[in-house]
Amino acid sequence: MNEELNNGLRIIPLGGLEAIGMNITAFMYEDSIIVIDCGLSFPEDDMLGVDLVIPDITFLKENEDKVKAFFITHGHEDHIGAIPYVMKELDVPIYATKLTMGLIERKLEEHQLLDSVRRKVVSYGQHINAGCFRVEFIKTNHSIQDAAAFAIYSPAGTVIHTGDFKVDFTPVYGDAIDLARLGEIGKKGVLALMVDSTNAERPGFTASEKTVGKVFDSLFQEHINSRIIIATFASNVDRVQQIINSANKYGRKVVVEGRSMVNIIDTASKLGYLDIPDDTLIDTEELRNYPAEQTVLITTGSQGESMAALSRMANGTHRKVKIKPSDTIIFSSHPIPGNEKAVSRVINDLIKLGANVIFQDVHVSGHACQEEIKLIYSLVHPKYCIPVHGEYKHLYAQAQICRELGYESENILILHTGDVLEISEEKAEVVDHVQAGPVMVDGLGVGDVGAVVLRDRQILSEEGVIIVVLSMVGGTGQIVSGPDIVSRGFVYVRDSGELLDDAKEVLELTVEKLQDKGVTDWNKIKSEIRDSLGEFVWKETKRRPMILPIIQEV
Amino acid sequence: MNEELNNGLRIIPLGGLEAIGMNITAFMYEDSIIVIDCGLSFPEDDMLGVDLVIPDITFLKENEDKVKAFFITHGHEDHIGAIPYVMKELDVPIYATKLTMGLIERKLEEHQLLDSVRRKVVSYGQHINAGCFRVEFIKTNHSIQDAAAFAIYSPAGTVIHTGDFKVDFTPVYGDAIDLARLGEIGKKGVLALMVDSTNAERPGFTASEKTVGKVFDSLFQEHINSRIIIATFASNVDRVQQIINSANKYGRKVVVEGRSMVNIIDTASKLGYLDIPDDTLIDTEELRNYPAEQTVLITTGSQGESMAALSRMANGTHRKVKIKPSDTIIFSSHPIPGNEKAVSRVINDLIKLGANVIFQDVHVSGHACQEEIKLIYSLVHPKYCIPVHGEYKHLYAQAQICRELGYESENILILHTGDVLEISEEKAEVVDHVQAGPVMVDGLGVGDVGAVVLRDRQILSEEGVIIVVLSMVGGTGQIVSGPDIVSRGFVYVRDSGELLDDAKEVLELTVEKLQDKGVTDWNKIKSEIRDSLGEFVWKETKRRPMILPIIQEV
Repeated sequence: MNEELNNGLRIIPLGGLEAIGMNITAFMYEDSIIVIDCGLSFPEDDMLGVDLVIPDITFLKENEDKVKAFFITHGHEDHIGAIPYVMKELDVPIYATKLTMGLIERKLEEHQLLDSVRRKVVSYGQHINAGCFRVEFIKTNHSIQDAAAFAIYSPAGTVIHTGDFKVDFTPVYGDAIDLARLGEIGKKGVLALMVDSTNAERPGFTASEKTVGKVFDSLFQEHINSRIIIATFASNVDRVQQIINSANKYGRKVVVEGRSMVNIIDTASKLGYLDIPDDTLIDTEELRNYPAEQTVLITTGSQGESMAALSRMANGTHRKVKIKPSDTIIFSSHPIPGNEKAVSRVINDLIKLGANVIFQDVHVSGHACQEEIKLIYSLVHPKYCIPVHGEYKHLYAQAQICRELGYESENILILHTGDVLEISEEKAEVVDHVQAGPVMVDGLGVGDVGAVVLRDRQILSEEGVIIVVLSMVGGTGQIVSGPDIVSRGFVYVRDSGELLDDAKEVLELTVEKLQDKGVTDWNKIKSEIRDSLGEFVWKETKRRPMILPIIQEV
Repeated sequence: MNEELNNGLRIIPLGGLEAIGMNITAFMYEDSIIVIDCGLSFPEDDMLGVDLVIPDITFLKENEDKVKAFFITHGHEDHIGAIPYVMKELDVPIYATKLTMGLIERKLEEHQLLDSVRRKVVSYGQHINAGCFRVEFIKTNHSIQDAAAFAIYSPAGTVIHTGDFKVDFTPVYGDAIDLARLGEIGKKGVLALMVDSTNAERPGFTASEKTVGKVFDSLFQEHINSRIIIATFASNVDRVQQIINSANKYGRKVVVEGRSMVNIIDTASKLGYLDIPDDTLIDTEELRNYPAEQTVLITTGSQGESMAALSRMANGTHRKVKIKPSDTIIFSSHPIPGNEKAVSRVINDLIKLGANVIFQDVHVSGHACQEEIKLIYSLVHPKYCIPVHGEYKHLYAQAQICRELGYESENILILHTGDVLEISEEKAEVVDHVQAGPVMVDGLGVGDVGAVVLRDRQILSEEGVIIVVLSMVGGTGQIVSGPDIVSRGFVYVRDSGELLDDAKEVLELTVEKLQDKGVTDWNKIKSEIRDSLGEFVWKETKRRPMILPIIQEV
C-alpha cells in the first residue's frame, strides 16, 4: 500500500493560490497529468512596466509526454488568459463548455493559434477520459454562464473541484447549480473537495443575479428622463442580458462601448447566450438620432481602468460620447481590491461634469459566501478539504469553516504554489515542491523581465538616474574628455543646474586623484565615481539616484 | 453696498478640497487674512519618488503683510503637517488647543523652528482677535482629542468651520461637542457653514468611540491565553487609552511599538490626555520577563505601511518582536482608500505565521455621518452651505443632504482649490482664482520635482533607459569611439545581449550614413539616433524605453 502511495495521486497548484488570478492546477497519477484552468493575472504594484503575468509551466514542459488534457472551468481571464502562451509551449487538447470554448477561441485567434490547438466542447454530465483520469462536467453558477465544476475520477479516488461558483436558485440563463449530482457523487465517497474561497470571509448567502435585474428596472423607472450609462464587467453576460431586458421594457436603444464588451457580447450572442431583440442595439454614431432618454450605454471601465471607455468619458477624451449633466451613470460592480482609488477618481470626474452617479447596491458577487460553502461540503462530504482560489486569508477563512463543520485540522490542507500534495485514503501530505509561480510578460518579452530589471526600474522611478561619461585613452588611464553629467528623473527646477555644476567639480577632483595615483582599472574608476558622486548628492539632496558611470575608450 | 461687496469677505481654499489631505483655507477681509489649518498630504500613485505633498502658499506670500494668524482645528497630519514648511516662509502666529499645540511643537522641534515660531494655546470658549476677524474656539469630538470648530466673526458676518468632527455624546476623554453653543451662535445668524464631508455618503450616526472599548474588553476576555497585538492609528489617543484600560483590567503589561506611536503617547501623557497607571508600560526588551498572555503590544502599521512596526513583524524583519502562532492580532482601524491591498498583504503574512488575526468591527470613524451633518445644519441654520474636507463625491453627497434640508442649489457652494469665493448676505460667488495646489517634497527638495521629472520617472519605471555614447572630434563630426550602448531597467535575461548587439549594428549604420552626409550638428545626430534605435527596439520588443544619446567631444 505504501509503495503504491508513493506513486499515488498528486495535486500540484502551479498558480492561483495566495494571490487572485493565474489559476492553474495539475493532477498527476503515475504517467498521467491533467490540468485544470490556465489563467493569467495582472501585475502587482511592484512589477513596474509589466503588462501581465502568466504561470511558470516548467513542470508541465518537463513532463510534456504525460500531460493528457487541459480542462477549463469557465471563461474568465484568470482561468483562460494564459492559454495562448501555454499552448505555444505544449501540444495538449483543451476541454470546456460551449461559451467558455467560444471565449478561448477568440484568444487563440488573436494569437494565430486557432488551427494548431486541439479542443473539444463538452456538455454538462459528459465524462472525458484523459490517461488514467476521467473528468465529469457538472453545472454550476457564476458571474459568467457555462461555468463547470469537475469531478475528477482517479485510481486513488475522486476529487471535486468547484471552479469559481455560487449557488443561484433563480439564474438569469439556464439551470441552477446541479446540487443533486454533487450529493450523488458525495454519497459514493469523495477523497477531496477543492472549493472557491473568494467570499469565505462573508457570512450568509450570495444573492441571486436576478435581484440586480429588479434594481435595474426600478432605476430605469426612476430616471426615465435621462440617458443611462451602465458600467459593468464585460464578461458578465447575464448582467448585460438584464440591462437589455430593462432597456427593452422602457423602450431604450442600447449602445455597447469598449472593445472587450463588444467582443464578449458578440461571442455570447452568436452562441445563443444572449437574447437581443432586433433593432435594440445601435452604433455609437446613431446616438444622435435618438432622444437621450431613449438610450442606454453599456460600457467597460467599472474598475476605473484608465484606458477603458467610461474613464475616457469621465476625463473628456472619449471621441464619441460626452457626459452631460442630465446623464445617470450606474456602476454595476464593486471595486476589486486595489482598484478603489481609480474607481473613486472616475466617480469624482463624472460628478464634476454634473452627472448623477449611482455606485452602491447595483451588484451581486459571483462567488459563494459562507453558507453556500457549507452547503457544498455537506453534500460532498469529502475526506480532505483543500480551499482554493483566494489570498491566504481567504483560504484560511474557508479552513475555519471546515473546522466549524467538524473537520480535523490535519484533513484541511492549505497549499502553496508549487506544493506537491500526495493524497490517498490513508494520508495526505506535501511530499515535494516544483518550480512554479509568476512569469512576467512585458511587450513581446515573456519571462525576460527579472528581479534585476525590476529593482533598477524601482530606483529609476523614485530617484532617477545620473549618468557620468568619460573618454579615456585605452590602457593609459589618460582622460581626454569629461567627466560630463546627464540626468533624467532627478531634481529639475530649483538650483539643479548649480547642483550638477558642483557635482562636476566633485567628479573632476575624484578623477584627478585617481590619475595622480595612476589608477587605470576601469572598474576601480567607476566605483570611485559612484561613491564620491553618490555621497555628494545624498548630502546635498537626501536622494539616492542611480549613478551610472560610462567610460569610453578613444 | 455693492462697492463694499467688492472688498467683502473672501473664502479661499488653498488645498484640502477634491482630495483628502493638505487642508488649508484662507479667509480675507480688506487688509486682514487668517488661515485655518495647514496640512500635508501623501503622494498620489503617479507622484513617483515623492515623499510628501504640501500646499502652494504663493497667495499667502504675496499678501504676507496681511496674514494675521493661523488657527488649527486639530493635530492630525492633514491639518498640521505642512506647518514647519510654511513657517519657514511666513512669520505668523499660530493658535491651537493644548494637545494640538503639543503635536505642532514636536514638529517645529524636528525642524529647529521651536524658538522662531510664535504660538499661543487657546481654550474652548476663548475668542482671538486677528486683524478685523475674531475667532472663537468651540469644543467638538474627533478621533483625536482637543479638536475645535471655529466661529469666525467678520464685518461681513459669521462663518462656522467645523474642522473634522463627529458627535460623540459619551466621549472617552473630556466633554461632548458643544452643540448648545453652535445653536446659540446659529440663533444670532450665521452667514456660512463649512462642514466635514468625509462620511457624507454614509447614512445614520457614527458610533461613540466608547463602543470600541467594550469590544476590546470582550476580545481580551476571549483571548485570555494569548499575547495580544493591536494596530491602530498613532494619533487616536482615546483608542490607546481604551487599550490601556482593558490591559489594566486583565492584568497585562503594555508595550508601545513604532516611532510615531511612541511620540504621540509621550506628548499626550505629558499633557495629561492619557491616564497610564504606574508599572503598566514596559519596554520591548522586557517582554521576555512576562508570560506572553500577560502582555499587549500597541503598534503602528494598521494601514499596511511597509516600514511600520506591524509590517516588519509580519514579514519577519522586526528586530525585537517575532510573531507566534499563539498571538492574537487586532486591526483597530479601517483601510484608508488606496491602502486596501497593502493591509491585505500584512494580514496574509500574519495568518501565514499562524497568528489569529481580527480585522473587522474593532473601529469607529472619527467623522460625522449623514444624520450628524443634518444635526449641525439644523442648529446653525446658515444662509450658505460650503461642504469641505473630502473628495468631490463626498462634497457632492453633502450638497445633496443640504438640498434635502431645503437649501436652494444657489446657496450650496462646492469650491475648487484656489477659488476665491466672495460672500455676503446679498450673494455668494466665485470672483477670482489664485495659484494654489500641491507642491511636491522629495528628500530636501521642496517644489523642485515638476511634471518633466515625473514624466521621465514614469517612462524609466515602465520601460527603462538605453544610453548611447559617442565620442566625436569637436566640430568635424568625426567619430573616434562608439556608439556604445548601456541599458538599465530594460530587458535583461533572454536574448537581451543579442538584441543590444543588433541595436549597435543599427546605430553604426545610422551614424555611418550621417557621416557620409557630412552631418555635424549634434542635435540632428542625437535625434537620428533616437529615431532609428527607438524604431528598432519597438519592432523587436514592443517596448519604448527612454533613449538617451550622449555625445562627448574629444
